[in-house]
Amino acid sequence: MSGNTYGRIFRVTTWGESHGKAMGVIIDGCPSNIEISEEDIDKELFLRKPKDDKLSTSRKEEDKCEILSGVFQGKTLGTPISIIVYNKDVDSSSYENIKGIFRPGHADYTYFKKYGLYDHRGGGRASARETVSRVMAGAVAKKILEKEIKGFDIFSYTKSIGSIELLEVDYENLRRDNIVKNRLWCPDENTSKQMVNEIVDAKNNGESVGGVIEIVIKNAPPGIGEPVFDKLEADIGKALLSIGAVKGVEFGRGFNLTKERGSQSNDQMDDKGFVTNRAGGILGGISSGEDIIVRVAVKPIPSISKEQKTVDVKGVERPISVKGRHDPCAIPRINPVCEAMVLITILDHLLIQRALGGIK
Amino acid sequence: MSGNTYGRIFRVTTWGESHGKAMGVIIDGCPSNIEISEEDIDKELFLRKPKDDKLSTSRKEEDKCEILSGVFQGKTLGTPISIIVYNKDVDSSSYENIKGIFRPGHADYTYFKKYGLYDHRGGGRASARETVSRVMAGAVAKKILEKEIKGFDIFSYTKSIGSIELLEVDYENLRRDNIVKNRLWCPDENTSKQMVNEIVDAKNNGESVGGVIEIVIKNAPPGIGEPVFDKLEADIGKALLSIGAVKGVEFGRGFNLTKERGSQSNDQMDDKGFVTNRAGGILGGISSGEDIIVRVAVKPIPSISKEQKTVDVKGVERPISVKGRHDPCAIPRINPVCEAMVLITILDHLLIQRALGGIK
Amino acid sequence: MSGNTYGRIFRVTTWGESHGKAMGVIIDGCPSNIEISEEDIDKELFLRKPKDDKLSTSRKEEDKCEILSGVFQGKTLGTPISIIVYNKDVDSSSYENIKGIFRPGHADYTYFKKYGLYDHRGGGRASARETVSRVMAGAVAKKILEKEIKGFDIFSYTKSIGSIELLEVDYENLRRDNIVKNRLWCPDENTSKQMVNEIVDAKNNGESVGGVIEIVIKNAPPGIGEPVFDKLEADIGKALLSIGAVKGVEFGRGFNLTKERGSQSNDQMDDKGFVTNRAGGILGGISSGEDIIVRVAVKPIPSISKEQKTVDVKGVERPISVKGRHDPCAIPRINPVCEAMVLITILDHLLIQRALGGIK
Amino acid sequence: MSGNTYGRIFRVTTWGESHGKAMGVIIDGCPSNIEISEEDIDKELFLRKPKDDKLSTSRKEEDKCEILSGVFQGKTLGTPISIIVYNKDVDSSSYENIKGIFRPGHADYTYFKKYGLYDHRGGGRASARETVSRVMAGAVAKKILEKEIKGFDIFSYTKSIGSIELLEVDYENLRRDNIVKNRLWCPDENTSKQMVNEIVDAKNNGESVGGVIEIVIKNAPPGIGEPVFDKLEADIGKALLSIGAVKGVEFGRGFNLTKERGSQSNDQMDDKGFVTNRAGGILGGISSGEDIIVRVAVKPIPSISKEQKTVDVKGVERPISVKGRHDPCAIPRINPVCEAMVLITILDHLLIQRALGGIK
Repeated sequence: MSGNTYGRIFRVTTWGESHGKAMGVIIDGCPSNIEISEEDIDKELFLRKPKDDKLSTSRKEEDKCEILSGVFQGKTLGTPISIIVYNKDVDSSSYENIKGIFRPGHADYTYFKKYGLYDHRGGGRASARETVSRVMAGAVAKKILEKEIKGFDIFSYTKSIGSIELLEVDYENLRRDNIVKNRLWCPDENTSKQMVNEIVDAKNNGESVGGVIEIVIKNAPPGIGEPVFDKLEADIGKALLSIGAVKGVEFGRGFNLTKERGSQSNDQMDDKGFVTNRAGGILGGISSGEDIIVRVAVKPIPSISKEQKTVDVKGVERPISVKGRHDPCAIPRINPVCEAMVLITILDHLLIQRALGGIK
Repeated sequence: MSGNTYGRIFRVTTWGESHGKAMGVIIDGCPSNIEISEEDIDKELFLRKPKDDKLSTSRKEEDKCEILSGVFQGKTLGTPISIIVYNKDVDSSSYENIKGIFRPGHADYTYFKKYGLYDHRGGGRASARETVSRVMAGAVAKKILEKEIKGFDIFSYTKSIGSIELLEVDYENLRRDNIVKNRLWCPDENTSKQMVNEIVDAKNNGESVGGVIEIVIKNAPPGIGEPVFDKLEADIGKALLSIGAVKGVEFGRGFNLTKERGSQSNDQMDDKGFVTNRAGGILGGISSGEDIIVRVAVKPIPSISKEQKTVDVKGVERPISVKGRHDPCAIPRINPVCEAMVLITILDHLLIQRALGGIK
Repeated sequence: MSGNTYGRIFRVTTWGESHGKAMGVIIDGCPSNIEISEEDIDKELFLRKPKDDKLSTSRKEEDKCEILSGVFQGKTLGTPISIIVYNKDVDSSSYENIKGIFRPGHADYTYFKKYGLYDHRGGGRASARETVSRVMAGAVAKKILEKEIKGFDIFSYTKSIGSIELLEVDYENLRRDNIVKNRLWCPDENTSKQMVNEIVDAKNNGESVGGVIEIVIKNAPPGIGEPVFDKLEADIGKALLSIGAVKGVEFGRGFNLTKERGSQSNDQMDDKGFVTNRAGGILGGISSGEDIIVRVAVKPIPSISKEQKTVDVKGVERPISVKGRHDPCAIPRINPVCEAMVLITILDHLLIQRALGGIK
Repeated sequence: MSGNTYGRIFRVTTWGESHGKAMGVIIDGCPSNIEISEEDIDKELFLRKPKDDKLSTSRKEEDKCEILSGVFQGKTLGTPISIIVYNKDVDSSSYENIKGIFRPGHADYTYFKKYGLYDHRGGGRASARETVSRVMAGAVAKKILEKEIKGFDIFSYTKSIGSIELLEVDYENLRRDNIVKNRLWCPDENTSKQMVNEIVDAKNNGESVGGVIEIVIKNAPPGIGEPVFDKLEADIGKALLSIGAVKGVEFGRGFNLTKERGSQSNDQMDDKGFVTNRAGGILGGISSGEDIIVRVAVKPIPSISKEQKTVDVKGVERPISVKGRHDPCAIPRINPVCEAMVLITILDHLLIQRALGGIK
């Protein structure tokens, strides 16, 4: 109800403030007898970590997880899995002088309106640091999906940063292992260089940038998704829109479909299966077995050093320049978070389908 | 779990197949002592009904509702409200010859994969007729919101049909009463005429078209939305993506934000409040008190008379030309459905906030 | 949230007031491809119906159901099943003169306090007539359980009426077919006669009586129940305590266990399995494969013609004699209702277990 | 779904195995701006702790909690509250020689059947140690209820241990402060002494005993409880039956009501209010404003040193004598756990009622 639990069977509950003691996640509804280790999780956490270069925040968290329950002798017990990551490099000093001042584009104002108080240090619960918990849950979901579904695969890549856009992509030859080697998760070297320049340029001007990323799931089984309200688009859409910086989501050809005619937008079939995949692998809210394709719009990081207009809790105007330690672009650190949310959603739907389909 | 209930406190459960006996909705969690009548609901159902012209299906349903429970002497009892609309103009004859053949762009294939059988008559549960139930629930939600929130208002309008786009709009002077008078819910007469032509052209070619609509909520109170997973964007997004034809959703400036820099995309504040509203009225997943603005991508209606390639349940290729009775464009009949889903979401979040906020 | 939905995967939502237009139920999360007919349901409804004798109310409802959705050509579609029973013998006249007066032992007072108004006709939503919907859902659950679980069986019998108690029972030879032939669902003829006398005596004195019934489930599979909060006792207990007249519930030897020592209360095992079944088939909240045994305390029907003290909505003292049409004892009409609630609970837990266990 | 979350608005998720690293709880849906400290929680944990005498286990846990999130500068933020207690006195050695052998009366067998593996050390998740998390959540609920409801009070006392029963009790003069001073939470000194003897006698014989406790809530507001399925009895009943050792529950006069006639069992009213309270403060599933009274049957602790018959995972007979460190009676350590579960339930229902009732 209060929004910190996601999923129906595979249920993920997260907790933790950016400058609090730790971040954590509880996974309830994880099948038993699944092998899972702290290393499996740390591997994904590593992809979310800032890198040691000009494109990253200087906050340096170790981000090694500890499993506190639910795993015994390397296997899941079927009981709740509690995983924790301690916050070790907390430095709240730069927030002292903006205490009580609402940072533009941040949730300070709305948290204050909603709760009557807020943790001003680093955004508290509204910080992107919250996504550490999501990535940990996603890592567990991935282990299960990879074990259960032959050929299951998920990857994401960066489609645009600011005005720099990757136009063509060869789906068949994209592999996550390769994508994540690129600093910006962009599968084209040339485009990637322009994207780096875009970010550096923004940073040098006290600014930040956004972009678009695409998530692709291969070999998800047909038949998952629960019409009419819990359609697969609805739940994947919700999962992605629940990530701080995401302001839009589209499936398959998405907004472009609105400019096509029916005979184009419909994916026709022949005896080898679907001829096209404009729908992004989902029909009537249920997976068709084709690649599930979804894109998200990531807004620019709101924390910028450039001076902006704002007010404090008393409504008094207070120009602000947000210092702290921030990335100039949420991409690609947001990419594994998006993947995690999709993984959790797909596993959850798979389990629902097993509940109902297993009884035929 | 199986996806036919939406909402947490204000809970809406829908049922009914397009060519079954009736469509219905149960609303559980409706506050007591609210005045509600069948007329209140029929008024909204009327806006969803096909019109008697070339832009509409020839299926003519009366679509008058009957309240079966939960309302006593004109007031809600606090018990579940059951509302029904009988299907009166059912004609399944045109579906007999395509029985067992998967209509392209429809859910026939995925329903068959998921459930092992499907109601081939008019799409069954996957039909747009299912949205009758949503509109009825939305009408109840609207009554409550209008009673509870001073100045609460919601409207939607058509932003594009195919390639015809309405570029500018004067939010301050848009009123639903006026918008709905336009055949396509387009607030600009000239653009509307081009849109009509676009639809007629598609129909004449055995085709269909899609478009974009925008929904605007005015005077929603600040403080609603439940981070981190049930952010207001996440839940509104889910609500809209759960509608059959919707393939994308974006808030505020949405995908355009990805091309802006931080100082542009951040809504700055002065002592009169927010200077801009690029975020679409939501920050950190919580309403800010500004207009909530969301757009959805509506794909072309999949039923077209133009011949398409497809297969039957045995995988045999079967060219198909879908006759039946269909609209050539889901807009504007989908508009009140989108509004209904947003209304239900906002009321539900308002009630959650009352639960938690009422105790300070 | 508002309490009219029960179950997590197999979700049952009920609606309807006693003197309203109809009673109904929506079942969402019913597996597809299950054969179900109106006759299957009517058969169970018949067992709940008043009989044409002195032990019954004179309200005569036909109680034939109509399936409005979710079943196509005799099989479940996997979509929500909507079932309705119209109220045909409504006579609210006897309630006119007690309008606004709180009937002792009834929910009039608390509904008024909670909702600010109440349907005074026959208890409205708080009437035992509400359980029609439960029995219909239970009938569907039973069809599935009988199909899925070899040897699955459920029965209930009357253990006591007022002070008349059935002391011994031979579980092995109890069969529902035989039990329900007895007017009071008591498997012992002699005891049954005394029970009838107890009820008649109460009725003749303008009174009512209660009793204890026991529900037994045979061959439920081991491994269902979800610790720590959704233990099988917890959920069966809730299911039964949600029935109007039930004020207590106990499993296995229940309250008697508190007087035993550990070596007695523990069910020991040998290589043929459990030696005893004092726990009632549930250990640690999970079914053991032994018979599940649960008893409920049914309070006397609150509607009695004997004059009682009460007040009206203004707090003024108003002696009352409740006329209307009422049973003098809720047993055995409550028995199929108890069975239905247990059936729904067990099926729901079975589906959850399939979701999680199916993935090993 | 998997049963480790309880509550709808005030949502409590627990985790931890008895011999794992720690026990914990996440509370989501806690109103903001509530003062809460680790001391508030430790105070209740202390009441659950074993005492240093012959009636207690020799496992000595410090049981001091640490709040990891959700509280800032002494006040709740409205974000999830994560509380942890580390397991410090873990000694699994006595479990090594019974590894793979099902302890009678325990959940070893059913966990093995359900999950395919189990943590044999101290019962793992099925241990009573799990209730540490419940007590912590209950302490938070209590703070809120005491703040919000004038005169709100809860206490529990021991009604029987084995065959020793406390017959009369003067509700008006019972105060928790006094009750908890008694070693067995029995408000009568004489009876208490006999109870101690009963426990000591059992222990000396390698046995254990059970008993009955009663929980009383004073000044709960009228109007809480959500018919028809989430009636207050149903939810309190579920909450209590979810505690390991509880095998029965009854409200008000409970099973005794089945022997009364309607005019006795009905609580009549005069202009001062209810004349009696046989219903235990709940009518139609909604609180009436009278004392809420509920009793639970607590079975004997299953761990006894007396030799018992059982089998191992391969079905081979293996006589067992359970050594470990165990209490000979779950009472009174279970008493604060029962209180906690009732507190959580009542607060949750209060918040639901605020959501719906706050809108009139």
